[in-house]
Amino acid sequence: MKRGFYIGRFQPYHNGHQSVLEHIAHDVDEIVIGIGSAQLSHVDDNPFTAGERVLMITRALASLGCPFYVIPIEDIKRNALWVAHVLSMTPPFDLCYSSNPLVVRLFKEAGIHVQSPAMYERDTLSGTEIRRRMLNKEPWKSLVPPAVVQVIREIDGVERLRQISQKD
Amino acid sequence: MKRGFYIGRFQPYHNGHQSVLEHIAHDVDEIVIGIGSAQLSHVDDNPFTAGERVLMITRALASLGCPFYVIPIEDIKRNALWVAHVLSMTPPFDLCYSSNPLVVRLFKEAGIHVQSPAMYERDTLSGTEIRRRMLNKEPWKSLVPPAVVQVIREIDGVERLRQISQKD
Amino acid sequence: MKRGFYIGRFQPYHNGHQSVLEHIAHDVDEIVIGIGSAQLSHVDDNPFTAGERVLMITRALASLGCPFYVIPIEDIKRNALWVAHVLSMTPPFDLCYSSNPLVVRLFKEAGIHVQSPAMYERDTLSGTEIRRRMLNKEPWKSLVPPAVVQVIREIDGVERLRQISQKD
Amino acid sequence: MKRGFYIGRFQPYHNGHQSVLEHIAHDVDEIVIGIGSAQLSHVDDNPFTAGERVLMITRALASLGCPFYVIPIEDIKRNALWVAHVLSMTPPFDLCYSSNPLVVRLFKEAGIHVQSPAMYERDTLSGTEIRRRMLNKEPWKSLVPPAVVQVIREIDGVERLRQISQKD
Amino acid sequence: MKRGFYIGRFQPYHNGHQSVLEHIAHDVDEIVIGIGSAQLSHVDDNPFTAGERVLMITRALASLGCPFYVIPIEDIKRNALWVAHVLSMTPPFDLCYSSNPLVVRLFKEAGIHVQSPAMYERDTLSGTEIRRRMLNKEPWKSLVPPAVVQVIREIDGVERLRQISQKD
Amino acid sequence: MKRGFYIGRFQPYHNGHQSVLEHIAHDVDEIVIGIGSAQLSHVDDNPFTAGERVLMITRALASLGCPFYVIPIEDIKRNALWVAHVLSMTPPFDLCYSSNPLVVRLFKEAGIHVQSPAMYERDTLSGTEIRRRMLNKEPWKSLVPPAVVQVIREIDGVERLRQISQKD
Repeated sequence: MKRGFYIGRFQPYHNGHQSVLEHIAHDVDEIVIGIGSAQLSHVDDNPFTAGERVLMITRALASLGCPFYVIPIEDIKRNALWVAHVLSMTPPFDLCYSSNPLVVRLFKEAGIHVQSPAMYERDTLSGTEIRRRMLNKEPWKSLVPPAVVQVIREIDGVERLRQISQKD
Repeated sequence: MKRGFYIGRFQPYHNGHQSVLEHIAHDVDEIVIGIGSAQLSHVDDNPFTAGERVLMITRALASLGCPFYVIPIEDIKRNALWVAHVLSMTPPFDLCYSSNPLVVRLFKEAGIHVQSPAMYERDTLSGTEIRRRMLNKEPWKSLVPPAVVQVIREIDGVERLRQISQKD
Repeated sequence: MKRGFYIGRFQPYHNGHQSVLEHIAHDVDEIVIGIGSAQLSHVDDNPFTAGERVLMITRALASLGCPFYVIPIEDIKRNALWVAHVLSMTPPFDLCYSSNPLVVRLFKEAGIHVQSPAMYERDTLSGTEIRRRMLNKEPWKSLVPPAVVQVIREIDGVERLRQISQKD
Repeated sequence: MKRGFYIGRFQPYHNGHQSVLEHIAHDVDEIVIGIGSAQLSHVDDNPFTAGERVLMITRALASLGCPFYVIPIEDIKRNALWVAHVLSMTPPFDLCYSSNPLVVRLFKEAGIHVQSPAMYERDTLSGTEIRRRMLNKEPWKSLVPPAVVQVIREIDGVERLRQISQKD
Repeated sequence: MKRGFYIGRFQPYHNGHQSVLEHIAHDVDEIVIGIGSAQLSHVDDNPFTAGERVLMITRALASLGCPFYVIPIEDIKRNALWVAHVLSMTPPFDLCYSSNPLVVRLFKEAGIHVQSPAMYERDTLSGTEIRRRMLNKEPWKSLVPPAVVQVIREIDGVERLRQISQKD
Repeated sequence: MKRGFYIGRFQPYHNGHQSVLEHIAHDVDEIVIGIGSAQLSHVDDNPFTAGERVLMITRALASLGCPFYVIPIEDIKRNALWVAHVLSMTPPFDLCYSSNPLVVRLFKEAGIHVQSPAMYERDTLSGTEIRRRMLNKEPWKSLVPPAVVQVIREIDGVERLRQISQKD
């Protein structure tokens, strides 16, 4: 049994995440997906709640063909404790997949093996770009799995983002 | 689509929880399982980490036949905010199943429908009793699903409980 | 201008508090009333929210004839910082009225003058006794100002207390 | 009985706030005034303590002719919980007055009615502008009620702002 | 270079601690002394501040003949993160000396070597017993190093303990 | 006995700090050195843990000739409580040495005497400049005491800084 860990903020979950997870699914027996900054929502760069993100990911991966866990991870705001925090909230895993330099460093200092998956089309497949398009009424739906379009529609997510992005 | 919420501390997950969840599975399309006091571990009445409890529950429910989410919920320590906290961490649900009087009250004050499932054999099927038996080297394995026995063995759980229960 | 500070948890506000405040009103020009443990509610010994307690106190003192401020004070859980915390949340005051030994000690160590008002009928005029009577369906309404009876009725307070006091 | 809620940081309380509250006073029977970011003080954009702001507001509204409550509200740093936090700290209210887009959104998602009062002279009647003038020794006293000028003098507020705004 | 870690609450620091540290001094090149529950003070079982405890320890060990560090460690309230918290606050160490079962367990699960030093005269050489004697005006000074008697006198420690131990 | 307090973040400890402390050593009998933002590490402007900074300072001051205490101080994030927090974590002191305007203001408002030591060569002798040089592979070792060079080498500090400073 080999278990891999993958973490992101998923604001929102998009095709780049989906592609990475489909690759990880070939390498491991089970995937643990951590939702970072789980306590944040309703702000410009973190519009969706942890629960909404759980829903996006679970639906989008319905046919992944590899068992997975989706775990909200609240920020601990102390980098030196973050790996211990993640480990306490997740089933044990054998390696971490991340291309975030801080995540890579923290796991390596803790003696945990890290692999950096290739991210393709980083320019368009990023939460920042997708939120920018939502705000500017540009096309964004092709950048996320269909299940994510549906969740965002159900929660009125684009309108929420537009409203909270206005200045006082 | 009808989604139900069920919360417990699951220290450990036992046959009483399993029985309730099997009943809920007949009533709803999806179940959201909240792991309460997720931040606690390594104390007498909360020996297991949230991640260990995620593992117990997921394995024990492998053949439930009803989709479910397992979500660690850290304590917020303000009862008046607890329902909002739960709602932010979970996919939206239609009703809550609980027989805990505080949980029932808080959800009702928030206008959320609550059902209190029958718990049978409360005397033996309780985390308190199971931990007591572990400490006293009495039989406890018949009170939990086989998958939970396996998880507790893998994490050396009984020895951990015995050690942390010693007085200084 | 002489301003006095008085703090309590007011679970609920009762005739003992009222009597002390009426005496203080003769000594000072303005009273600052701190509501301690403001973040707590819906537990056996702290059933009411800070907002509900603000309402009880403000209504009960409507005809006090001395200006007063009612300020919720969340616990800081560090005694050595508590006086600084109180001072940051309140208009400046000249002396503190308290018979709580810890409050007396902390203010004295901070160099603030403290007076301990006489509390009469401590046996019956206590939050503990009033909550006990509410739980046991014994008479309690004569122990609190009429405005408090009304607030507790409006918020269904006795039923809330009974429900959250049940064991799981 | 109709109660309205109005929230601001009041750094400092100024004529724009005063004007809005005078209008609200005609619409409701009681006003609940929340002091946001109550825990902050002694920083460039939040120089005054919650207690100092309580004093400014209470004195400035002495002749409002409508009962009001002034309640410090500490930040909860989780938007999804903020409305529940506000509700727990305040007497119950029927509607919220706010033109802050995030506040409007959060209250609307919670099903609470919101009205956006007209703010006139936003360019000069803003805390940011008043603090800028204080720092630059430009005239600012005409922008706040006389009672606020007095409080700021008593606490040596302008000098405090100038000192903490210096760079190390 | 071999560095050892020793942790206690030191309420107050007494001859039992002194004896253990004198033994450790023979085994290692440097000692890191952690003051646990550093944020607590002015309560029955934690009367002294972290700073006061730093002073007691440093003075009592003035002639130890082994370099030592005295580090206040605030509680993190998550056992699974506690070792990482300790490690982030202290110079790196090679082994931990503790007879507290939870400390032993947590360090062992983190793969850090632990030794349990012999504690002699546990009945009298305990903080609990010394505080009990202080409260009851029984002799306690022979149980602590002379430097500790002096610190407690300077801070009026016995009177503080007596006052905060009174019931309301 | 005259005790002085000096606080910094020491990211890293450099010759400017060393110079100030050597001057303070002539004025007082003992020095209390507070390590600010002790909980931070592994970020661009706070790369080192509190424990690593304890080690740098203690080694660099080995031949200071004046007794000193090195105390990690976690942020309290409430300026109005910060002085009380510092006082609770440190042995009592008579005056504070600081040129940080906020620190000066907060101690003065608390009635504690403050002296602002001359800082020379502020352009190069600053943590910001030293971290910039580390990132850009420019010479930095001459700006810190030799003991600090050694600690940073032992913990692989420059490589850590470079890695966490990369963008995702």
